[in-house]
Order: sequence, then C-alpha cells, then structure tokens
Amino acid sequence: MNNSNKPLAISIGEPAGIGPDLILRLYEKRKSAALPVFVIYGNIEFLRLRAASLGLEINFLETSPANANKVFPTSLPIVNIGKNIKNTPGLISSEGAKMALEAIIAATKSCLNGQCQALVTAPINKAALMNIGFSHPGHTEFLAEICASEGKIPTPIMMLADNDLRVVPLTIHVALAKVPKLLNIAMIVQKVRIIEQEIRQKFGLPTPKIGICGLNPHAGEEGAFGREEIEIITPAITLLQGEGMDISGPFPADTAFYPPNWRKFDVLVSMYHDQALIPIKTLAFEQAVNITLGLPIIRTSPDHGTAFDIAGTTKASTKSMLAAIIAAKEMAAQVKSTAT
Amino acid sequence: MNNSNKPLAISIGEPAGIGPDLILRLYEKRKSAALPVFVIYGNIEFLRLRAASLGLEINFLETSPANANKVFPTSLPIVNIGKNIKNTPGLISSEGAKMALEAIIAATKSCLNGQCQALVTAPINKAALMNIGFSHPGHTEFLAEICASEGKIPTPIMMLADNDLRVVPLTIHVALAKVPKLLNIAMIVQKVRIIEQEIRQKFGLPTPKIGICGLNPHAGEEGAFGREEIEIITPAITLLQGEGMDISGPFPADTAFYPPNWRKFDVLVSMYHDQALIPIKTLAFEQAVNITLGLPIIRTSPDHGTAFDIAGTTKASTKSMLAAIIAAKEMAAQVKSTAT
Repeated sequence: MNNSNKPLAISIGEPAGIGPDLILRLYEKRKSAALPVFVIYGNIEFLRLRAASLGLEINFLETSPANANKVFPTSLPIVNIGKNIKNTPGLISSEGAKMALEAIIAATKSCLNGQCQALVTAPINKAALMNIGFSHPGHTEFLAEICASEGKIPTPIMMLADNDLRVVPLTIHVALAKVPKLLNIAMIVQKVRIIEQEIRQKFGLPTPKIGICGLNPHAGEEGAFGREEIEIITPAITLLQGEGMDISGPFPADTAFYPPNWRKFDVLVSMYHDQALIPIKTLAFEQAVNITLGLPIIRTSPDHGTAFDIAGTTKASTKSMLAAIIAAKEMAAQVKSTAT
Repeated sequence: MNNSNKPLAISIGEPAGIGPDLILRLYEKRKSAALPVFVIYGNIEFLRLRAASLGLEINFLETSPANANKVFPTSLPIVNIGKNIKNTPGLISSEGAKMALEAIIAATKSCLNGQCQALVTAPINKAALMNIGFSHPGHTEFLAEICASEGKIPTPIMMLADNDLRVVPLTIHVALAKVPKLLNIAMIVQKVRIIEQEIRQKFGLPTPKIGICGLNPHAGEEGAFGREEIEIITPAITLLQGEGMDISGPFPADTAFYPPNWRKFDVLVSMYHDQALIPIKTLAFEQAVNITLGLPIIRTSPDHGTAFDIAGTTKASTKSMLAAIIAAKEMAAQVKSTAT
C-alpha cells in the first residue's frame, strides 16, 4: 500500500461537543463530498448512540487503519478507544475527557508510525480536560509533546488558512501586555524559517512570498508609536532576506488584509493572536482551517470549539471540519509527491 | 433658510494628495449620485489647474455658504483659501500645507457658526504639516482644538463605519505596549458614555446596542491570558449597565466580527487601534467612513490617506469619500429632525 492510499486519522475530540456530530454528518456525505478515507479514533458505542440520536443510519466497524480503504464505502472505520461513554451533549464527564485524550494520543501515534497519512483533530474542551489533570497550554502543545523524539519537543506553529489566505501569529495564548516582551529577532527568525520550510514542503510553493505585519498601529509610523518595527521586526526581515527568502514588511496590520494586499502573499505573519485571527475569522467565517506547522506529522483542525449549546444537533456548520479534512489530504499528497 | 438646506463644508486636504481628485470627480457626478450640496474650502486657482489636468470641465465660483444651494447645480462653490498653490501631485510644499491647515480651520468654523451643516475633511499629510510646525497628534485632535469653547477642548472619539457596522477603538495612535496601561474603568466609562450619547443623537437609535471587545486573546479566557477583562472591562460594563445602557461583553475580538455577531450590535467598542481597524478595513475595503464623535460639530472623512503615488490621476476609488459625504448629510438630517 503506498502512502497516498493510507487513511487520515481523525481524533473524536470532546464527546459532549459538536465534534462527533460533524464527523458523523460528514461521513454520511462521503460520496457526494468525495471525501478521502478516514479512521475515527474514539469510542464505537458512544458513536452509535450519537448517530442514533441524530437520526443518522451509519454502520460502524472496529478496524485497523490498514483495512480502512476496504471498509470506508460501507462502514465508518473505528479504532475503538475508551468505554462507557454516555451520549450527553453539552455535559462533560471524566470518562469522556479521558477518552478524548487517549484518542489524540493513539491517532497521533498512527501518523508517527506511518499507519495514517495525516491527523485531523476534532475540538476538545480545556475545562473538561483540566478536571482530569491535563496541564498543557492547549491541544497543539500536547500534540508536540506526543511527537517528541529523543527528548526533544518540536516547536509547533499555528497557522490558519482559508484556501490561499494563510496567517500565522507568532505569539498565541498570552496576555496582550506580554506580547511586546516576547518578540525578539531570534524568535522571529527561528519561527519564520520553520514557516517558510513548511509552506514550501507542504503546499508545493517553491519560493513562498511572506508578508510580515508590524506590531503597532500604522506599523509604528517610523517610530512614532513604538520602536519594535525598527529594532526587532525590520532587522529580522533583513536577516531572512539575506538567506534568500522572498519576505517583506513590516506592513500596517489594518490594511494588510485588504484582499488586494493579502493576495500578494502566500502567508502573512502576525505578531499576536487577534492580529491574525480577527481578519481570517472575519473573512472566512466558519470555514477556516487550523494547520499546525513544525510537527513531524501533518495536523489540521477546524477553527472552532466544542459549541456545547448546539452539540447533539445538526445545527453546527460542517464547513470548517470538511475544510480541515480536505486540507490534510492535500498536504499529505503534496508531501508524498515531493518525496517520490 | 432652515438647517437642512445648509451645505456641507469640505476641507480640501493636502493638495499634493488624492483629496482634490476625489472632490472634483464626485462633483462631476453630483446629479447621478444625487449628492448633497457642498462648499469646498480650498484654493480656487489650484482646483482649476487640477481639474484641467484631470480633463474635467468644471465651473468654479467663489461664494459664501449661504449661496451654495443656488450655485451648486452649475458651479462648484468655493470658499477661497491661500494663493500660489501649484498643481504638483505627490510633491508637498509649505504653501500647500499652509493652505490645507487654513482650510480646515475655516471649514470647521463655518460649522461651528452654523453656516454649514457638517464637516467632511479630505486627507492631510502629517509629514507635510510637520514641516510647517504642526505639532498636533493628528487631524482629529487639531479639530478638537479648533472646537474648544471657553478654554475646554472636547474629547474626540474616532469611529469607523460602513453602514450598520460601527467600530470605535478606545485607544488609537499609541504603541501597543502602552495600551494595557491606558485602560481603566473611568476611561472606558467616560468614552462609552460619549459614544452612547452620540449614537443616540446622530444615528437616531434611541437605545443603541453596544458590544465591548476584550483586550486579550479569547477575552482572557477567565483570567488565563490577562486580567484586564476581569479587573477593568467587566466592572466598566456593569457600571454602564447600571446606568441603563444596553451594553454587553467583553467578547473575544476574533469572533466579534463574524457577520452574525457584529450584526447584534449598533456599535462595537475595541480596546486598541488595530482591533477595530483590521476588521472594518478588511470587511469594508475602501468604503468605510471615519466619523468623529464627541465634537460640537458633525465631522466625517474617508478612511484612507493622501495616496501620493496615484494623486493627480483618476485611479483612486471615490467610494470612501462619497460615503463620508453621505454619512455627514444623514447625520445632520438626524440631528435636525431630533432638534425640531
């Protein structure tokens, strides 16, 4: 079996959230949506209950990833994780949280060991996980630890993408007051090198065009409102240009996301969370994909959370989860074609 | 003559920029675009030269605002300011900058003394003004000083609007690192009171729905990434709710501008420049209007700058300038109808 025939691994996410709903509803549309083959890492009995409550007639089959291609047309292939998970939309439980964690670990390992092509993660709920002792800053950092090799944890970098619009915030889940102190030339250079290499390898863009946002309003207006552009961001850009990168900036963030402006770039790098997430979530409402760069595996996820208020219903949009599946498949195909 | 028959005052802005181009091109479309009557505060000889270089056949007439209605159908009414202004697109001069400043002063005074209904300002260039000793932080602060009464300078508040999408950043032209220190309960309460009153009076919304953004990613996630939401923003909201305002938040900024989310509000208040300007400039590309709240006059302007690279051509979009003119007229009509 060659790599392109291997299935995607989907981790079920928080069972009280909308993740299972999206997975089941998308599986039902597998033919019309021409979905790639995937295996669900999660509890089979729970999925049966949820499917029944949604009125979906789906066959489930516990199987290994190697048999997924054969199974997929007629049954949803499951790597069974956990037990006694109740179908209680919106209501978290320690069994559910434990199963969600174990599913992430198993699905990630299936990609690391080559059984699956890429990982798509359904949303988890941090509060539910903290109840059972989870102490990682988030989903992505947890994945990076699972991917550690010889004691070295890779640096994961969050990218959000909607087709050709790709944004990467250099800092993420920190107070805004801490952002300026976290920026320095070495950090920007290190992260942009990873971004550039990943875009090249996983998106088939031999010389990605990289745009860098400033930190301050009007990118500091030549030092009038902050000196980070002059002292940190511009020197980092100059250094990376010296390495041959097609990189420019710093650009004022408020106009960087005008469509004619962002279209000049394959990726826009932002200095902080909302500087990247406001424009992409505003432009690509409910259909952006979260892509983790810098890991030894391909990993995507939808850009939304567990949405407990509409879990167990068909109200949630499947767009972002569908986009996450398609993006994972495309990236896997790209890496494969580059490797051969 | 009743107030609704008074003209709008338009200050010419930087003569080397695109402001004069937009004004002249819009005047030519006055019938098809059903434009309200306006008077230009600027140099008549310069405007003749610029119109000729653009190939526009326009009559100009030096006049007082009182005669603008009569003049407007056949000639562009001008209150003549300055002299010997050369038509040098993209090339600033001290004569040009001086004329731009004098035009702002005269146009503002025409609104303060009731000759004109509202002020629309074409963009200025800060570098050109600083060359002749201008030391105000910006256009808006300069207007506030002209509007000072009995030694008291009003607090101007910048709002950007695209029809029903209205955003107000509580801090503007300061380094991002300074933003958290500038936020406090009293400042938020004072500014939101002005915003609420102005939206009520100038937009005919008796109980404006006000949404407040958080400062930090995910609005701090209950203190995990910053405590400003808990210690400053939420107490300010509670206090204002106690005054009877329809106000809620703090909302995570990255999803506040999803169309179904922002549509719940008449105005969204942001904590810093780019948090407000990224979404509106991204959504309302080239057509948002800058509206100054808190002044004793109505003032609007386009949301773009002087664009020296395309000045003296017909390349610049007239959308934002047109929207600024329409918005000024509508606000004036609203204030008038409320007053009578």
